[in-house]
Amino acid sequence: MTTKSDEAFRRWEAAFGEERVRRDSETIELYSRCTLPHGTTPLGVLYPVSTADVQTAVSIARQAGISLYPISRGKNWGYGDACAVTDGQVILDLSRMNRILEVNSELAYAVIEPGVTQQQLFDYIEERGLPLWFDCTGSGPEASIVGNTLERGFGHTPYGDHFYNSCGMEVVLGDGRILRTGYGHYRDAKATHVFKWGLGPYLDGLFTQSSLGIVTSLGIWLMPKPECFNMFFLSMPEDDDLPRVIDALRPLKLSGRIKSLVHIGNDLRIISSFQRYPWDDAGGQTPLPETLRRALRKKGGFGAWNVSGGIYGSNGEVREMRRQIRKALKPLGSVRFVGPKMLAFAEVLWKLLRSRGWQKELQVMLGSLVKVGGLLQGRPTDAFLYGTLWRMAGRDEPESLDPLVNNVGLMWISPIMPMIGSAAQDLVRNISPIFLRYGFEPLITVSLITERAMVAVTTIAYDRENTSETDKARTCYEELFREIMRLGYAPYRSSIASMPHLAIGSDVFWDVASGIKKVLDPDGIISKGRYDPLV
Amino acid sequence: MTTKSDEAFRRWEAAFGEERVRRDSETIELYSRCTLPHGTTPLGVLYPVSTADVQTAVSIARQAGISLYPISRGKNWGYGDACAVTDGQVILDLSRMNRILEVNSELAYAVIEPGVTQQQLFDYIEERGLPLWFDCTGSGPEASIVGNTLERGFGHTPYGDHFYNSCGMEVVLGDGRILRTGYGHYRDAKATHVFKWGLGPYLDGLFTQSSLGIVTSLGIWLMPKPECFNMFFLSMPEDDDLPRVIDALRPLKLSGRIKSLVHIGNDLRIISSFQRYPWDDAGGQTPLPETLRRALRKKGGFGAWNVSGGIYGSNGEVREMRRQIRKALKPLGSVRFVGPKMLAFAEVLWKLLRSRGWQKELQVMLGSLVKVGGLLQGRPTDAFLYGTLWRMAGRDEPESLDPLVNNVGLMWISPIMPMIGSAAQDLVRNISPIFLRYGFEPLITVSLITERAMVAVTTIAYDRENTSETDKARTCYEELFREIMRLGYAPYRSSIASMPHLAIGSDVFWDVASGIKKVLDPDGIISKGRYDPLV
Repeated sequence: MTTKSDEAFRRWEAAFGEERVRRDSETIELYSRCTLPHGTTPLGVLYPVSTADVQTAVSIARQAGISLYPISRGKNWGYGDACAVTDGQVILDLSRMNRILEVNSELAYAVIEPGVTQQQLFDYIEERGLPLWFDCTGSGPEASIVGNTLERGFGHTPYGDHFYNSCGMEVVLGDGRILRTGYGHYRDAKATHVFKWGLGPYLDGLFTQSSLGIVTSLGIWLMPKPECFNMFFLSMPEDDDLPRVIDALRPLKLSGRIKSLVHIGNDLRIISSFQRYPWDDAGGQTPLPETLRRALRKKGGFGAWNVSGGIYGSNGEVREMRRQIRKALKPLGSVRFVGPKMLAFAEVLWKLLRSRGWQKELQVMLGSLVKVGGLLQGRPTDAFLYGTLWRMAGRDEPESLDPLVNNVGLMWISPIMPMIGSAAQDLVRNISPIFLRYGFEPLITVSLITERAMVAVTTIAYDRENTSETDKARTCYEELFREIMRLGYAPYRSSIASMPHLAIGSDVFWDVASGIKKVLDPDGIISKGRYDPLV
Repeated sequence: MTTKSDEAFRRWEAAFGEERVRRDSETIELYSRCTLPHGTTPLGVLYPVSTADVQTAVSIARQAGISLYPISRGKNWGYGDACAVTDGQVILDLSRMNRILEVNSELAYAVIEPGVTQQQLFDYIEERGLPLWFDCTGSGPEASIVGNTLERGFGHTPYGDHFYNSCGMEVVLGDGRILRTGYGHYRDAKATHVFKWGLGPYLDGLFTQSSLGIVTSLGIWLMPKPECFNMFFLSMPEDDDLPRVIDALRPLKLSGRIKSLVHIGNDLRIISSFQRYPWDDAGGQTPLPETLRRALRKKGGFGAWNVSGGIYGSNGEVREMRRQIRKALKPLGSVRFVGPKMLAFAEVLWKLLRSRGWQKELQVMLGSLVKVGGLLQGRPTDAFLYGTLWRMAGRDEPESLDPLVNNVGLMWISPIMPMIGSAAQDLVRNISPIFLRYGFEPLITVSLITERAMVAVTTIAYDRENTSETDKARTCYEELFREIMRLGYAPYRSSIASMPHLAIGSDVFWDVASGIKKVLDPDGIISKGRYDPLV
């Protein structure tokens, strides 16, 4: 093996130059960092700059029988970050393939490479003053758009379903062939990035959440900038209010009236978004004592559940939607709306205030408003990475919010439910005790992501520098994963820690995926083990 | 071969009983009928009533090496109807698998088998007074919903993209295994029919426009009945008005303001929807003389292009959208709106009028309005099959509108274009002369089907009882197909006549599809040749 891999590295170096082929210990350490309890250690890292480079990398890997593990920017926080599923793979870091190949304003789409970051596309659009928004996630300015789309991630605007809003892929297969999906394989095709399904079997789905190919470019749809944008907020005081608010919101989502993702965060989610764990007040104990939790909730003026979302359209449409939302939620409480003027004012005020004394709290609140508002308009921010610091103990506020730099512990579990209040209650009641039993707070957001489905994004935030806590986090995660599967709420995506267990209670589906793998990647050299439990 | 097939039929008879296994000449004749110039002749027909039956059929077919060709209801008019791609296959007629397995009103979805017709689901919903609409096509009450969805057909309401609005499949593979997609393969999964993508590679696309499996049940999303519905109409007088109207409508589609399909039919499309070819006035000549075309256009008060669509929402939303549409289309002409009261009045009047004398024309017009209005509300009708009679010569008005009963000739070609006016003009200018050269009228509808794409649904209507005209239709079709591919506007679906030619100028895509076929159907016994040009 060593000889084979040495030989492969020599050939990669000959092809790419030494600067783009790394296996020094510093690089290995950098790419072994992980927010999960166990990261994995790669053999080395390659930095292709073109599709042809990717083909070359594949060809050499194939001859050596070494698995290549493509990452876009490696910001898959809490799901595996930049780590491969298993040790001993070679990371194919696509961050230098970061060209924006096309932005079509008339038809509102872009074609981009995997290395393009959220900030980069945002800046491109801003600089040119294009009347377009793109949908971004809270994972920070440096996260890859393609990477998130291939993981079938969700953002916050009406274009939040990223995979649905993608169209036309270029893919390098495990045998080096280049596949163009949709109409892209027809010469002079004119509808490649505007019509998703193409002609013949629709193949694009194969390259999401899989190890079936390396996507080297992708069309993504952009949202025409609306005439008007509003935010809405509602707080529900009691834990048991969750099902009522979901059932009240469902008709608004189902009818397409509310097009944005609706975010329903519990008090812990909100609190952890702007402050760290109150170690002193808790006397160093975890999980957060219930009395302290209630006190923090009261002090901040939050509810047990806190609803937020966006409204988009002409001025008239937004007015009408405000009326509809107010009417539907009236039995639950008074909905607050924030329009563009108030949002602009909040931004000015936020910048004027100082982050100390009595001003600090107001500043933090306004900052949250501005940043949530930005996200609902497709503006990237790293503000939501602040929550990763929640359980970091005995260390000062770090300069960077990069979870890998801070060595914070973070595991997500994201079960999907039908949009029925009782389903959310069922889930929350069953998983909360598991968090608490292991000494963690159930940080839970229930997000209404499509017309009929909602996801509970739940976080185990732990101190990765504390070994015993790290062990508990791992066991807690395993128990949570088993529990959501038992309840029938499988997740919408998986961390590398769960990937070997995805076939539990299921067979043909994963057999079929595995059979297709053998056709597209006969030597099994792409992303070994990624969403492939039978490997 | 004969012995093998005799043996297979004996085994099918043993399994299903003689009544559900047919190869008498009458049945063979019935299933050889086609609206295309060449139908194909099957070996026989099987009628499974359950998924287990389908597995049995597959198992026996596999041992005999005979291809099974599943059809849902066989109403794939103008694309191959109930015919297999090649002679000598056994039709697997799924029409008796027609259970509505579930209708969930709260989450607005249904789970149905392939034999469920548009009328059947419509009646089910009506009888129970459920506040739901489903999206139907103009292909008549007896057409299959699953069949159309697997062909990636389009309807007229905001739920018009049928494949997008489907969720959770049960599929019998060519080796007899049952695959459940999405979350369906997990025990007690609760989100199978509400969340489309599941976990791991998204496989559903493989079973649309393909020969990769036999779908035995499918979840489809239903539309919550809106508070208000309006239709809008606009006529454009000149041929060259088409690009202007598309460019004016694009922002309304892109912004999601108009959610329905927008139908832009040319004069010929409208005329052929309520009258047959004017053989006498044309002196028996084809194609329709330009002066006569203009006279008919004038007499009926149609434009060269005729726009129609629907608006859905609360009363307030519909009012606002009317304002937006009126404003956007103002430079082009005066948009007419028809609200529920006017539509109800039209329906009453239509039923009161007689279909003769001076009342006939008004009756026909009102009938069109009522039926288009119905379709925009998901009400199945056979009215749009009337157009299939256009070029039927020397025969009286038939009792049935079934194209196969009437032996009418019909071929569709449906290229997809980016939603840009100049693309439609480019297409229309290049294909119209081809129609005319072969003696056919360019019957063209440009439909804005998604936010960014439009389809030109074009028809060769010909007299299938006239041999020379049938020959011309075939050659005309081949030339049209080559032309749209040359222009870069590949179709969104294909007739069995084009399936052997889909790989033109393209390779890896079809190689990949073919490779996957070998895994899912190792003996190649499902739908031989269907969207598989390399077979």
